[in-house]
Amino acid sequence: MERLPGFRDFYPEPLPGADSWSADARQYIFERWRAVARRYGFREYDGPPVEPLELYTTKSGEEIVGQLYNFEDKGGRSVALRPEMTPTVARMIAACERSYKKPVKWFAIPQLFRFERQQKGRLKEHFQLNADIFGESDPAAEAELIALLIDTLRAFGLGAEDFVIRLSSRDAWEEFHTRRRAEQAPGDGGLGQDGAGAPGAGEFYQVIDKLDRADRQESARKLEALGFSLGEVTEFIERARPTPGLESILGSLEARGLREFVRVDYQVVRGLAYYTGAVFEAFDRKGEFRAIAGGGRYDNLVELVSAGKVRLPALGFGMGDVVLAELLKARGLLPVFGAHPDVYCLIEDERLRAESLKAVQALREAGFSVEYPLTRTNADKQFKRAMEMRAGRTLRIERAVEGGVAARVKNLTSRKETVGGIEGLVELVKGA
Amino acid sequence: MERLPGFRDFYPEPLPGADSWSADARQYIFERWRAVARRYGFREYDGPPVEPLELYTTKSGEEIVGQLYNFEDKGGRSVALRPEMTPTVARMIAACERSYKKPVKWFAIPQLFRFERQQKGRLKEHFQLNADIFGESDPAAEAELIALLIDTLRAFGLGAEDFVIRLSSRDAWEEFHTRRRAEQAPGDGGLGQDGAGAPGAGEFYQVIDKLDRADRQESARKLEALGFSLGEVTEFIERARPTPGLESILGSLEARGLREFVRVDYQVVRGLAYYTGAVFEAFDRKGEFRAIAGGGRYDNLVELVSAGKVRLPALGFGMGDVVLAELLKARGLLPVFGAHPDVYCLIEDERLRAESLKAVQALREAGFSVEYPLTRTNADKQFKRAMEMRAGRTLRIERAVEGGVAARVKNLTSRKETVGGIEGLVELVKGA
Repeated sequence: MERLPGFRDFYPEPLPGADSWSADARQYIFERWRAVARRYGFREYDGPPVEPLELYTTKSGEEIVGQLYNFEDKGGRSVALRPEMTPTVARMIAACERSYKKPVKWFAIPQLFRFERQQKGRLKEHFQLNADIFGESDPAAEAELIALLIDTLRAFGLGAEDFVIRLSSRDAWEEFHTRRRAEQAPGDGGLGQDGAGAPGAGEFYQVIDKLDRADRQESARKLEALGFSLGEVTEFIERARPTPGLESILGSLEARGLREFVRVDYQVVRGLAYYTGAVFEAFDRKGEFRAIAGGGRYDNLVELVSAGKVRLPALGFGMGDVVLAELLKARGLLPVFGAHPDVYCLIEDERLRAESLKAVQALREAGFSVEYPLTRTNADKQFKRAMEMRAGRTLRIERAVEGGVAARVKNLTSRKETVGGIEGLVELVKGA
Repeated sequence: MERLPGFRDFYPEPLPGADSWSADARQYIFERWRAVARRYGFREYDGPPVEPLELYTTKSGEEIVGQLYNFEDKGGRSVALRPEMTPTVARMIAACERSYKKPVKWFAIPQLFRFERQQKGRLKEHFQLNADIFGESDPAAEAELIALLIDTLRAFGLGAEDFVIRLSSRDAWEEFHTRRRAEQAPGDGGLGQDGAGAPGAGEFYQVIDKLDRADRQESARKLEALGFSLGEVTEFIERARPTPGLESILGSLEARGLREFVRVDYQVVRGLAYYTGAVFEAFDRKGEFRAIAGGGRYDNLVELVSAGKVRLPALGFGMGDVVLAELLKARGLLPVFGAHPDVYCLIEDERLRAESLKAVQALREAGFSVEYPLTRTNADKQFKRAMEMRAGRTLRIERAVEGGVAARVKNLTSRKETVGGIEGLVELVKGA
């Protein structure tokens, strides 16, 4: 029986030639994500992997459904495996924002899903670090969030030569979009005044978002249909000055010594409709991979999800496990994983099995990871197994000359052997 | 917008009066599960949360579908959110067992799902520690697995006065079942010889499994329909001696000093059809809660899932997060969780914000968790916030008399204050 296409099995170690992922690599990534988020004072949360379909259509319209892993549940409800975490966290915070002092800084490591009909060989799921700040409209929040993003990547050994954060502003684009439309139809100057809701703004952002990947002529055609020329758009991207908001973010990152990791780049707009202010994406400097992470400010989403009950400025980013793991692998930054027990207890004399088990138990209780042969095993085979597992030390329980038993510990790196009484076993192993 | 019924939101801390769970408590449980499994040399794996429906019906028949969270996906496939991990791990190991030295010791912490039509207010999901051993038929494997189960519970502060492992044997029950049927129909003596497949054995185990929860008269009636009397079943439970396999398990646990945590109890049989040997369940001693964990040997499942290609003895257990969390709460063994940053950096003079941010960054890079006011905030309010968060220390960057800036660190427990140059900041904070 086979797993479903587009899903991953996570074996402890990646198998030679298999298209499987390693659970150890995944856990390594999760632990670093979690550690850095905690250093930044972000608190962990999680929500259900299944949500009402409505949670996503409210925000992005019915078009989104084509990409969702949605279905009808046995109770006849329209539901979806969550495609992103932002609607869930917006729903959660809206439900009880009064219980929290602002700003609220939260993170989660959800598994996310998609199901496009035309996909072949594409993954249907991935994991993502999601970090969000609620209740702060000052650009200081963007600086804190982007600093977290930078330090998360640095925690894996990536440096300024490996990645860059491209920082942009929906405000600046909004202003450009509105101004040009007003120029084109001067009698209709108020048309674009309503911000993100300006007619055609959503489509416009999707064209800009794909500009560096899409065919230039096609982009030009699409922009013309929306009343813009590719030339003026390109000029804006190249010439526009950072907004005061972006300047403030850059200043805060400068103070932290993180300025070199960020570049203002109006090419970035993010495809999703709900962003309202600064937006940013992390890329590898060589441009070999898709975006490593992306996010921005979404000040209207909590209000939308709570049907107008709660207004709360918000911003966040997501960082997936797939591109990150590919990048780390390419840069030689994924450790070699393995069992590596601290101690392998050799049991060469079955009459000493009970004493050996007692020693195994004592060491495990002291926090060591310990392996031993479950059943009678040839002595050479045991030692070979300890070496294969790259155990730190071997332990042998032996009959002591003076009666009772003694412990012989061998450090497999230094090859040094020490012998001692069974009472001092834990100390003996610690010192070996 | 509300979450779906039967699913949990995990807020960082449980909100007063809310039916939500705490992500911190969940993470506390996961970290202990993981730490003990690693000490025992178990390696982590994971599989997809969605599997082909067939993976479950092959093993348990079509009746299981009524309890599954199954649906038809957009590609027209019959799939299910995984109800348990054993079929997934059996599928995974069958796919590449030749790459692994035996015994294979694996664990996972999956989220599992169910969807019963008649459920009201019941959870549709929970998390589970799953630990399995493959490729070892000796009872030494049961002993290792049960020792892991015991030490996992002990890692939360639970002792022999809090829980007990009730150990039983499908072999013993199988023999009882076969013998009685042979006595009843002597001319048909070979009927029950085919082990787990004996006619009525599945139903029989389900009645035994529910014996201490179900109405006695109803149990008696059901047993009679299967050709047994409640009296003979009760007598077997009370009188039967441990099998040699159970004796061997108990001996190994005795050698480890863990004998007091286990009691032979033939009342336990486990409801699932696929168990073939020893079975066990962990219960709180006071009998206030449902089973904390359960498992056993399932030597035929890998063969079944691999359509006969791979034969591999196997055993495992699952421990859910819901009963465990309830028990820990009842025994006062869940810590009080909170943000508790190591340092709260007070910024009372906005002219020193850049210097303060630099200090925040330096401390975070040194591994401290650090909070600070994102924007201009009244000094009293900042200090109050540091106290509410139960920060370990406050830090104040100040103008130094000799020019430049100095750092003032206050330990909020001892109230002791130290002042030093900004160059030695990390050491200053470590010592405070």
